[in-house]
Amino acid sequence: MTIFDEATAVSRRPDGRYDAYPDRRFAIVAPGGSTPPAVNGGALLATVLRAVLSESPHPHPVATSAHFLRVPAFSPAQIEVTWLKQGGTAATARAALVQADQVILDTTVTVGSVLATDQGSSRDKLDWTGPPPGFPAATDCVSLGQWHGTTGPDGVAGYAAQVEVLLDPATTGWHQDRPSGLPEMRGYFRLREDRDPDALLLAVAVDGLPPVVFGLGATGWAPTVELTWHMRAVPAPGPLAVATRCRHVSHGWFDEEAEVWDSAGRLVAQSRQLARVGRGQRRDLAGTAGQEAAAATARS
Amino acid sequence: MTIFDEATAVSRRPDGRYDAYPDRRFAIVAPGGSTPPAVNGGALLATVLRAVLSESPHPHPVATSAHFLRVPAFSPAQIEVTWLKQGGTAATARAALVQADQVILDTTVTVGSVLATDQGSSRDKLDWTGPPPGFPAATDCVSLGQWHGTTGPDGVAGYAAQVEVLLDPATTGWHQDRPSGLPEMRGYFRLREDRDPDALLLAVAVDGLPPVVFGLGATGWAPTVELTWHMRAVPAPGPLAVATRCRHVSHGWFDEEAEVWDSAGRLVAQSRQLARVGRGQRRDLAGTAGQEAAAATARS
Repeated sequence: MTIFDEATAVSRRPDGRYDAYPDRRFAIVAPGGSTPPAVNGGALLATVLRAVLSESPHPHPVATSAHFLRVPAFSPAQIEVTWLKQGGTAATARAALVQADQVILDTTVTVGSVLATDQGSSRDKLDWTGPPPGFPAATDCVSLGQWHGTTGPDGVAGYAAQVEVLLDPATTGWHQDRPSGLPEMRGYFRLREDRDPDALLLAVAVDGLPPVVFGLGATGWAPTVELTWHMRAVPAPGPLAVATRCRHVSHGWFDEEAEVWDSAGRLVAQSRQLARVGRGQRRDLAGTAGQEAAAATARS
Repeated sequence: MTIFDEATAVSRRPDGRYDAYPDRRFAIVAPGGSTPPAVNGGALLATVLRAVLSESPHPHPVATSAHFLRVPAFSPAQIEVTWLKQGGTAATARAALVQADQVILDTTVTVGSVLATDQGSSRDKLDWTGPPPGFPAATDCVSLGQWHGTTGPDGVAGYAAQVEVLLDPATTGWHQDRPSGLPEMRGYFRLREDRDPDALLLAVAVDGLPPVVFGLGATGWAPTVELTWHMRAVPAPGPLAVATRCRHVSHGWFDEEAEVWDSAGRLVAQSRQLARVGRGQRRDLAGTAGQEAAAATARS
């Protein structure tokens, strides 16, 4: 069992709710440590999806909407799943992660069935896919470094110790305090442990790269407010190629769209999130200890 | 008071819930009349948003996630609003439209504050916007015709009688049974009545054009399963320019992304929806009565 599967585990209780525990091994440490450590939003979402899928009549979370309301504590949490419809093609549940009677993460999940890896083409003759983003070869991408900054005060390694992100060098200028001026990222994402991607890991991948606004030099804490993602196919084994872009930054809000392609060259997930631009923390990471990891993972 | 405002009106009850009534004047009639008339999904969403905004601590629905579960009846409905968080920058509510104890439309809405029309630029120096889609001049666009097909069996005019959609001719080939082969639409959207756009009308505009898969020749009923939209600025008076595109059609599912720009050239809304490709109704509209309206409005 991988650390990811342990960290996102749920346990069904007699009352039908699930016990979960936001795990320090997927912690995010904000730049400078000024914000209490949070848990990677994707890992939190995967935890909720695990509960939903465990009782779902259909295999795949085709549409997941998530509103991130509060920073979770590293303490017990409960997940409540309520089915609103159970249909032949799709079913829909509300699911919320709750701590101390407060909703931390509120989701609505519509489940259905998408193309499996062993299906060469869809049963539907209308299949169509837009051109893929221009991904460089993984060998031409760069790692963001040792990720040492994600180690929290208690010495527990965080999110960036669990995942490997290789970025297109064209999107890493911010890392040397020379932002490209374009809010976009491209790269490859996988767990450091040997584990094939699935719906749960896709939930992490869609929010797995550094925030797009880093490309504009805004490398502060950029909390996700809302994220919706669609699962479009079951991913093949291997690393995931992820491309993100932004269309609009205004009044402190920015959008980030992600596409995830699998090793077989299929579009397996799409997402868009609305997030807040961090305040007062632009370009303040240069030269500080832990800049690499903090900048690369300052996401909630 | 416009028909749109009447059709999306809500009335607060003593128990805190709201009364609403899905209105035939925003009815959609499926191709061939094989499906019972539904109500335009955007109008339904506007109705729910009206209830949420009437008691919201912030003025704008910055992130609205909606899962469409069932076809509403033309009969009384109730809207239940539950606030999950009330914060200084944002607040989040769940809101559901219910008929006969069944959830028809389930939403989560995060409210906040976006750029107003009289604010020349954001308070935030980081403002950034991607290049706009290539919109032709409105005078070079074409109307889809008299929209007579949206008249239901009882003679009440439907959705298409309420809105004017002018389309880029490059995206209307499907209308003469010569689909372009590209799943995209571009055009201008406004109410036929004189009414400035606002958050409620943006909720209609993001799903206001013909489904993108019409461009692939799939002109059947294409029900929206999930739609999330973000309000990015308060729209200026005048028509809205809307551009939609699709990235992937597979296994009967397709995505549709919309961008809405106002008459002042600002990006005011973004959306993505996941919908189902209609079955057995491709290119079956040619020559049938009502093809124009049905094809142009077969959305739930």
